[in-house]
Amino acid sequence: MAKNLEISFLLDFYGSMLTEKQRIMIEYYYNDDLSLAEIADNEGITRQGVRDSIKRAEGQLLELEERLGLVKRFQQMQAGLEKILLAAAEIRKYNQKHGSAEKIDACANDIMQLAEQLRD
Amino acid sequence: MAKNLEISFLLDFYGSMLTEKQRIMIEYYYNDDLSLAEIADNEGITRQGVRDSIKRAEGQLLELEERLGLVKRFQQMQAGLEKILLAAAEIRKYNQKHGSAEKIDACANDIMQLAEQLRD
Repeated sequence: MAKNLEISFLLDFYGSMLTEKQRIMIEYYYNDDLSLAEIADNEGITRQGVRDSIKRAEGQLLELEERLGLVKRFQQMQAGLEKILLAAAEIRKYNQKHGSAEKIDACANDIMQLAEQLRD
Repeated sequence: MAKNLEISFLLDFYGSMLTEKQRIMIEYYYNDDLSLAEIADNEGITRQGVRDSIKRAEGQLLELEERLGLVKRFQQMQAGLEKILLAAAEIRKYNQKHGSAEKIDACANDIMQLAEQLRD
């Protein structure tokens, strides 16, 4: 069973839509990098049971993304905020070399802080 | 039955999680502002049937927000982007009065355009 890296993102957004048991197993697998056998041991069920449960949970997460598209939306947001950060950094750099207006530096700094907060 | 304005926001995010029938009725009610009686007429069911269906759909939308919190997250994003826009506008205004550096104007303009795109 190949680990699908996208699943970690989906878990972050939609994990609360899974049953607690599903969530625990898929988090062990994707976030804590435990093997199926280790999870089976922890949970006192078979390796196949763990595998089925994780597969089902993955299917649900992928379907949620297909319906809601929120991970995609947030990733676009992240990309836009990254560009805002770069543009604000350019303003500061240019301003520091030419004129050093305090007002411009303060506003550009505000923009960078806001963009960083929103990105996290 | 009082209309809950928050529902329109929730519909925008989570509408795809409802059944098609539920979605159609709740959209008539919240987005198109039809009365329960008008929707009952359109759908060929009783007014009480429409009311029950809309109430159930509202409950589901509210529960989705409680689990996922995405409307809240996006509203925080909107508020942050609004502040970024204002700060970039201040940079442009200040710059136009003092020095008019093309580079600063172009970067601040980029920031405004990016923030507006992300806000929409």
